[in-house]
Amino acid sequence: MSVDPRESKPCPQGSRIDPYVGSYAARAQGMVASEVRALFAVASRPEVVSLAGGMPNVSALPLDALSDIVQRVVTEQGATALQYGSAQGDPVLRQHICEVMGLEGIDASPDDVIVTVGSQQALDLVTKVFIDPGDVVLTEGPTYVTAINTFAAYQARIEHVLMDDDGVIPEALEEMLTRLAAEGARVKFFYTVPTFNNPAGVTLTTERRARVLEICQRFNLLVLEDNPYGLLRYEGEPVRALRADAPRNVIYLGSFSKTLSPGFRIGWALAPSAVRDKLVLAAESAMLSHSSFNQLVVGRYLATHPWREQIKDFNEMYRARRDAMLTSLDALMPAGSSWTRPEGGFFVWVRLPEGLDSKAMLPRAVGERVAYVPGTGFFHGDDGRGNMRLSFCYPTPEQIREGVRRLVGVLESEISLRDTFGSASAPPRLGDDAPAPDLP
Amino acid sequence: MSVDPRESKPCPQGSRIDPYVGSYAARAQGMVASEVRALFAVASRPEVVSLAGGMPNVSALPLDALSDIVQRVVTEQGATALQYGSAQGDPVLRQHICEVMGLEGIDASPDDVIVTVGSQQALDLVTKVFIDPGDVVLTEGPTYVTAINTFAAYQARIEHVLMDDDGVIPEALEEMLTRLAAEGARVKFFYTVPTFNNPAGVTLTTERRARVLEICQRFNLLVLEDNPYGLLRYEGEPVRALRADAPRNVIYLGSFSKTLSPGFRIGWALAPSAVRDKLVLAAESAMLSHSSFNQLVVGRYLATHPWREQIKDFNEMYRARRDAMLTSLDALMPAGSSWTRPEGGFFVWVRLPEGLDSKAMLPRAVGERVAYVPGTGFFHGDDGRGNMRLSFCYPTPEQIREGVRRLVGVLESEISLRDTFGSASAPPRLGDDAPAPDLP
Repeated sequence: MSVDPRESKPCPQGSRIDPYVGSYAARAQGMVASEVRALFAVASRPEVVSLAGGMPNVSALPLDALSDIVQRVVTEQGATALQYGSAQGDPVLRQHICEVMGLEGIDASPDDVIVTVGSQQALDLVTKVFIDPGDVVLTEGPTYVTAINTFAAYQARIEHVLMDDDGVIPEALEEMLTRLAAEGARVKFFYTVPTFNNPAGVTLTTERRARVLEICQRFNLLVLEDNPYGLLRYEGEPVRALRADAPRNVIYLGSFSKTLSPGFRIGWALAPSAVRDKLVLAAESAMLSHSSFNQLVVGRYLATHPWREQIKDFNEMYRARRDAMLTSLDALMPAGSSWTRPEGGFFVWVRLPEGLDSKAMLPRAVGERVAYVPGTGFFHGDDGRGNMRLSFCYPTPEQIREGVRRLVGVLESEISLRDTFGSASAPPRLGDDAPAPDLP
Repeated sequence: MSVDPRESKPCPQGSRIDPYVGSYAARAQGMVASEVRALFAVASRPEVVSLAGGMPNVSALPLDALSDIVQRVVTEQGATALQYGSAQGDPVLRQHICEVMGLEGIDASPDDVIVTVGSQQALDLVTKVFIDPGDVVLTEGPTYVTAINTFAAYQARIEHVLMDDDGVIPEALEEMLTRLAAEGARVKFFYTVPTFNNPAGVTLTTERRARVLEICQRFNLLVLEDNPYGLLRYEGEPVRALRADAPRNVIYLGSFSKTLSPGFRIGWALAPSAVRDKLVLAAESAMLSHSSFNQLVVGRYLATHPWREQIKDFNEMYRARRDAMLTSLDALMPAGSSWTRPEGGFFVWVRLPEGLDSKAMLPRAVGERVAYVPGTGFFHGDDGRGNMRLSFCYPTPEQIREGVRRLVGVLESEISLRDTFGSASAPPRLGDDAPAPDLP
């Protein structure tokens, strides 16, 4: 599978007959399949270079060490590893998680950490605990696809705050909060991926971090800081997490999916204690407890493996892939296009030449054996047709160079179409990209 | 830990100051801590015989086989096991799950199975997809504790249907559905644990199964069949799952937590395809995907280990524990008490002599070094003071005999109190059992 299940976005369900259609909860109307899933099923063929997925390159993992760890957890800790655990999570793992967060300036107690099924579950639990239908969630525009799906599943009203190469624009945030306050909207939190943003690749500057926190505190607004990529930095100076400087106003979400493996589904939330209590109860009714086995495996990995050095190795590998992508884009992209230059993470955000439509041209691109995610996937609403997200985490540098070559070929033919007929590929007719019934 | 995290039930939160108290969603009011958690923290001391927890006896697991399986999954399937998977779950595991369900007469396609974080997550996802605030969920009375919490977390109206030693009473179900139809209530599904019920230990008879299905079909009501214990039978003839005879009207929930281990958190839902589509989308926004690693481990266990024989071994072990409990109860319980005689599963449901209060006497019982779950835990509302759930899954036969001896001592002193003063232990004052901030 060469596509990250994260790549999905609301669109109407197919019109299959559903005898239960009258029985679903109102929130289920917000649960809809990816409009590009059918294409991604094609894109997962080996001959296609996928610049779409956000999957880490797990082939770089130390399998011998992991194999030793998992069997020791069974033989030495079986009675605990194979039993139910607590809904908050294993205390030893929560202690290690605090060490990991310390690398980004966070001083936290394991008592305030809850272990979740990836940071995705933390995102779901926070939304479940805070969002009534119609409550407002602020997010960057563009933002993480599945965060949009989760907020929509709880019937939140999603408002995007403008961002640029330095991250979210404080003035835009303040202006929006002022406007929403004036209309009496119930704004519950500001969801942000401030470091190596998915999909934009940009990082909120240190100066802006202070201003964003000041604005949110002034408006008494919780910040939901999602930071899966923070330790994957390939150049530049580390930045402090937002949570490091505002412990009472920030709920912090972390994950081992990118720094170790998504296969264990270990993420976490760090929250003020009153919120943590609610999250633990929500987690209990959502799953009773997470896998004790996986928590002990990750805890033992952090206790016995040189994981900081391991992350350095990952960063060298990813840096080479990022450089391959940026060098190819610099050399080949047509005039009128621009893109971000991420200092870390997995993604480059591209602005296409005037008149090109990333969603409309995707079928042609897949036909040319290259895949990406159209910018429309990262907005609630219809923005982003002039953008695409390119990921450099999964393909090799050679594949990346070839992928960019193929992509540029598609762009050039789209441009000549535009110049000849005044418009490029027509947007697909409704139903052209009806969703597959489940994930690829 | 000698208590199953499943043992928790609504009561008001402690009165700690919470700066976010005005910000939570309405549904968060339904997320409240266990009223008996503080006591269970005491009950987890080694000197206490706990007849409270519903934890399987994982010390009977084949650790050598599991240790070999987990390390082979890393070394031979690492690229898949350590990567993201699909939200529906691993296809090979779903195939094996269909074989497991076949043992109870279910003929199903892997396409209609979704793998979840224990059957608890399946319960949460089904509720999320179907329940708007005020919608009615029918359940047996008594019923599974955390199902009550989950329904409450989605603001469902919970109505209990009377049951006896043959399971839920069809006439009571029909009467309630007729009454609810008359008042125009939106009844979404009937949640049932028909085989070796938690907590009652009883099994719905074959004759009643047909009648319950007929009634639900006539009222166009979905059945949510929760069957974690069905394969743990110690005597009597196997019964067919409800799903086996009504594929279009039943959502079936299964789990490997009792037949293998709760440590991998692998459960599943089998649902009609339209519902399955919704559940997959809900799972995606709730966690992206379950642990690929755990799914491959359980799949490999089912493919390579004689799991049917393993379950037979478990059943011999649990049969001895059940017999120890029933023999002790027969020999020692005071006049005026009665209890169920489960043919499988983990639990015996006790009716206490007139005037005794299982919730009020729990502190005294823990003081006498024996723990149980008061019947009040298994009802939405205040029923069950005259009942208690005793579990025989975790303690050894010797511990069970000693536990029942201690329990009977408490009952006899309660009875003499009652006979002398006209009432037994006074109910605890409000706050006496304020909840711990998180799970024990």
